[in-house]
Amino acid sequence: MNKSDITTTEIKAEESHRQDSADLLVFILLLTLTILTIWLFKHRRFRFLHETGLAMIYGLLVGVVLRYAIHVPSDMNNVTLSCNVNASPATLLVNVSGKFYEYTLKGEISGSEVNDIQDNEMLRKVTFDPEVFFNILLPPIIFHAGYSLKRRHFFRNLGSILAYAFVGTVVSCFIIGLLMYGCVMLMKQIGQLGGDFFFTDCLFFGAIVSATDPVTVLAIFNELQVDADLYALLFGESVLNDAVAVVLSSSIVGYQPEGDNSHTFEAMAMLKSFGIFLGVFSGSFALGVATGVVTLFSLTPFHVTKFTKLRDFPLLETALFFLMSWSTFLLAEACGFTGVVAVLFCGMTQAHYTFNNLSPESQDRTKQLFELLNFLAENFIFSYMGLTLFTFKNHVFNPIFIVGAFLAVFLGRAANIYPLSFLLNLGRKYKISSNFQHMMMFAGLRGAMTFALSIRDTATYARQMMFSTTLLVVFFTVWICGGGTTQMLSCQKIRGFLEQSCLMMDFLCVRLQIGPDGVERRSTKQESVWFFRIWYNFDHNYLKPILTHSGPPLTATLPACCGSLARCLTSPQAYEEQLKDSDSDLILNDSDITLAYGDITVSTDATGAHTSGTPVGGVAVNSDEALDRELAFGDHELVIRGTRLVLPMDDSEPPLPLDSRRHRHKNETMS
Amino acid sequence: MNKSDITTTEIKAEESHRQDSADLLVFILLLTLTILTIWLFKHRRFRFLHETGLAMIYGLLVGVVLRYAIHVPSDMNNVTLSCNVNASPATLLVNVSGKFYEYTLKGEISGSEVNDIQDNEMLRKVTFDPEVFFNILLPPIIFHAGYSLKRRHFFRNLGSILAYAFVGTVVSCFIIGLLMYGCVMLMKQIGQLGGDFFFTDCLFFGAIVSATDPVTVLAIFNELQVDADLYALLFGESVLNDAVAVVLSSSIVGYQPEGDNSHTFEAMAMLKSFGIFLGVFSGSFALGVATGVVTLFSLTPFHVTKFTKLRDFPLLETALFFLMSWSTFLLAEACGFTGVVAVLFCGMTQAHYTFNNLSPESQDRTKQLFELLNFLAENFIFSYMGLTLFTFKNHVFNPIFIVGAFLAVFLGRAANIYPLSFLLNLGRKYKISSNFQHMMMFAGLRGAMTFALSIRDTATYARQMMFSTTLLVVFFTVWICGGGTTQMLSCQKIRGFLEQSCLMMDFLCVRLQIGPDGVERRSTKQESVWFFRIWYNFDHNYLKPILTHSGPPLTATLPACCGSLARCLTSPQAYEEQLKDSDSDLILNDSDITLAYGDITVSTDATGAHTSGTPVGGVAVNSDEALDRELAFGDHELVIRGTRLVLPMDDSEPPLPLDSRRHRHKNETMS
Repeated sequence: MNKSDITTTEIKAEESHRQDSADLLVFILLLTLTILTIWLFKHRRFRFLHETGLAMIYGLLVGVVLRYAIHVPSDMNNVTLSCNVNASPATLLVNVSGKFYEYTLKGEISGSEVNDIQDNEMLRKVTFDPEVFFNILLPPIIFHAGYSLKRRHFFRNLGSILAYAFVGTVVSCFIIGLLMYGCVMLMKQIGQLGGDFFFTDCLFFGAIVSATDPVTVLAIFNELQVDADLYALLFGESVLNDAVAVVLSSSIVGYQPEGDNSHTFEAMAMLKSFGIFLGVFSGSFALGVATGVVTLFSLTPFHVTKFTKLRDFPLLETALFFLMSWSTFLLAEACGFTGVVAVLFCGMTQAHYTFNNLSPESQDRTKQLFELLNFLAENFIFSYMGLTLFTFKNHVFNPIFIVGAFLAVFLGRAANIYPLSFLLNLGRKYKISSNFQHMMMFAGLRGAMTFALSIRDTATYARQMMFSTTLLVVFFTVWICGGGTTQMLSCQKIRGFLEQSCLMMDFLCVRLQIGPDGVERRSTKQESVWFFRIWYNFDHNYLKPILTHSGPPLTATLPACCGSLARCLTSPQAYEEQLKDSDSDLILNDSDITLAYGDITVSTDATGAHTSGTPVGGVAVNSDEALDRELAFGDHELVIRGTRLVLPMDDSEPPLPLDSRRHRHKNETMS
Repeated sequence: MNKSDITTTEIKAEESHRQDSADLLVFILLLTLTILTIWLFKHRRFRFLHETGLAMIYGLLVGVVLRYAIHVPSDMNNVTLSCNVNASPATLLVNVSGKFYEYTLKGEISGSEVNDIQDNEMLRKVTFDPEVFFNILLPPIIFHAGYSLKRRHFFRNLGSILAYAFVGTVVSCFIIGLLMYGCVMLMKQIGQLGGDFFFTDCLFFGAIVSATDPVTVLAIFNELQVDADLYALLFGESVLNDAVAVVLSSSIVGYQPEGDNSHTFEAMAMLKSFGIFLGVFSGSFALGVATGVVTLFSLTPFHVTKFTKLRDFPLLETALFFLMSWSTFLLAEACGFTGVVAVLFCGMTQAHYTFNNLSPESQDRTKQLFELLNFLAENFIFSYMGLTLFTFKNHVFNPIFIVGAFLAVFLGRAANIYPLSFLLNLGRKYKISSNFQHMMMFAGLRGAMTFALSIRDTATYARQMMFSTTLLVVFFTVWICGGGTTQMLSCQKIRGFLEQSCLMMDFLCVRLQIGPDGVERRSTKQESVWFFRIWYNFDHNYLKPILTHSGPPLTATLPACCGSLARCLTSPQAYEEQLKDSDSDLILNDSDITLAYGDITVSTDATGAHTSGTPVGGVAVNSDEALDRELAFGDHELVIRGTRLVLPMDDSEPPLPLDSRRHRHKNETMS
């Protein structure tokens, strides 16, 4: 081979590399600009625009510049060239005057695009492979959400959250799908439809816009210390409905009736789709939880043994934690499950079990690492969203479809929230009030997940129209609904931090006057969902003590006959730690606030086991006794601390390190 | 478009995606295994094998399995297909029965490979694009090295380090190049050379194997608390010679004599190459420093103003820091400079200036983040190295070349260390002893940088032979030299922590008896390199106070006439901070230990400005006075603390947060 040839190839590759670097630099600078501006906003306490909304605006501006201001003369040499072959292999070898070049398939392009490709190389350059969003940017966001979910208020509202996330999302998907189908029919009638648009496409649209992402709203909630239950409902729902929407959309794509081209309804195909939904969801769930537990076990031996030098550990521990969490995603994808869903449940498991076994420094490190990754990924996605409005070449903006979509999204959200809230309120003691319902309705923002799902496939006319419309829905909801959160909160008179704490105090006093007579408690216990009560008791009394260093010692929860087994399973160190347990994830009852006094009040009678335990090492496992102590403790604290009552409003925060959590526990026992 | 067509394409894409996930999973699990094993090793205090060496072993094992145990039946449909065109564009459109598919150029393949491609799809799958190493994995490693370089001992030995890194690396490169050329000539004589091998190729080989990477050795040094000067010499040299080797290799590739095919010597081309070296190096240097300073300025306003809520900041700060550091790399690459070199100097600037202006939490976060990235990237590279010994298909193992290379590497290192040490010792008061020289010779391991440079281009026969040989050199040095470090240290009788601290204490006592008469001090000051003294004084007295919150207040260092200007440039907060300054990066003299007592002893007379300052706010700027105080302080401390004397051996650690540094300062003043 000739040296000058090599050099020419090298120069060509170098130029392409330089261009890539410059393109990526544009995004990095965009993010930098966003950070600097948001810093200024925080400084001036502007709440009408969240960082994600700002990132979109900057993205839009750069998109306009790229589209209209910069015209890179296209290098014809770089593109053109067609050759006729009769297949489309993944790898192509091209014989150029005796030398072989290897090409990889990038995708199919429509005939109209062939000329476009030569048009503006610059625009094509700043377009990322859609899979980047799904495989690189989304996982840290979703993992972070799962990792932050570990809070008492989440478990207390678990039933409602699951209802909103599962039933609500499916309802919303079908409502939107049906409305959009009507819309498409109308468009067909008046001849505004430029291509195929099947009912499955409509359902697919319904699925992708049903994934809510109230990141903007939650940031403001967090800042204003808004009601913790409302926060838990919204956050929990948005995290879980992302998972539901992903699996739902993939099972809609998988809906394939017999006879290739028919898009008719068919019971068998429908059932199959439903089977796919269940299979993929439960598979991803199981995989995520399994990896979480494996991480736990691989970390545990190094904390139980005392010989190791702890100082060297946090780095290894954090690295292991990070790699295991990432491998969950890869494993799920390799198995054909949904990585994003697996990562979500992995994050939740890590937060619930593994977190307790990390060293305090690693707890900080992992928390900070995923916080940073989440922040960068989120802002990158939103700025790319802004950019893509102008740089995406195949937009199909159809006024009827857009108006229909906005209406459908609104109605779909309403059909999710109001009827479900009504039904849930029948069973809840602590009702979801109507202003909470309006707030949840209003907080139905669409964000990163909706975008990632819609950009994933923009090959057909229907998908292109969906993508364009989705972009507008995201822009509108993030800017208008996100920006109006503060106004909406004051309009709905939703209590902020101070007002609520006063109410809470009144409530506490009333409760304390009633006294721990046991009657009240028993009645509320019957209201809780039996399934979760069983699970919670099992988890709290057996899983947590075995897996982590928190929870009551096994010697106390296991029947006396299993004493030696219990002592064997509980390491001396773990036992010591367990006495200081501060992990109170009560789910006993959705609505009853009294049971939040302390998690030791959970007796094991729900599982059918013994109801009374003996106090071991100063910890009262007997529920009545414990409740007495807790109530007395709470009373005492209330008197001492007076106005310094701090409510556990910081549910948004990722788990705190052990010692600060221990401190917080005192406050939590009072809410 | 037909729906079944879309589905077929989707299924194909999904399968490919699954395979990719599985491949990446193999590496993640490999890293996980490495971490778990190394944890066990640390627990048992095994020092003969470092985590990088272990990663290579695991990589080798997986490579063997992939190569010999797994035979994936090749999917013929995926590959084959050749078409005759007369150019090799970056993008290719293929017309398959009316539909257009887009392909991107992956690279050229030699004729012999065309059949290989069909052979083992699995092996091809686990082969990463070589640019991944340069653009994704190396930058965090190099940045981390730069970010950790900020230490007094580095600056004290700066002259020697620069000599080893610049002169030494160039000498080593040419010695190895010449020896290898002799070797190649011999091979040509006996007919063992299967392709072209020019003198420039030999020089290129010399450049890439001149980059040392003593990560294994330094880890052990750190653990055993070996001599801080030796540590600084080795670490500083290895960090800087990576940068020199990168630029050197790229300017050797750029050596292009007139007349395309001649590989003869030509003065003009040689000069041009030298010009490229200087231009690229200084350009990358300037860019790195510039971005560091820009980061500083973009961070500063948010710390000077007092209105901001500090609690919300660390995330934004860390994100900004990360993005700016990354953009250095991209900017340098986009400008045609060397990103890795720019990142190195950016890291050093960030550590020297920006770090002081970060909030304590961000200091922790950035330190931990880059520590983690460095750890993951390094172990990934080393495990890939192991893997590639078996999975790379074009190995050319030539016994003569390999033996020659080992000899050349040994002689090149010797020609770097011994003559330079001799010359440096002529000028140093605190000589580099012969056992230190032997240790430096022994610690000339080759690692990540050598590998990344050699895998970057394996197109020609010469490059393939270099790559295979380089792999063996890396394996040998990491396992044998790395594993033998502890033995070598005891063999060379290099003082560990305790012995040295005893010696130090004797020395201190002697010095204190001499007393601060000023004579001794003046004589040592004359020995220091004038250039660095001027730079240091300027940096310490003007740059640091203006740019950061550390260093003496400007009001003290500027002449009295500039008083108002000084007060204007120093913010009240910064002034406050400066009084607590603890940043003592003394470079005044390479060898004299007395000047390490405190950096306030640096008088400004070297810059030609005033020599006596007035004590402002309790800080004595007058050098004699300051030295008196410092010595008295040292004496006092010595008496009080007695055997608790702790030497500043932890130079390897990234900068500590402010409060812990303040604590450390007391110890440092005593060494």
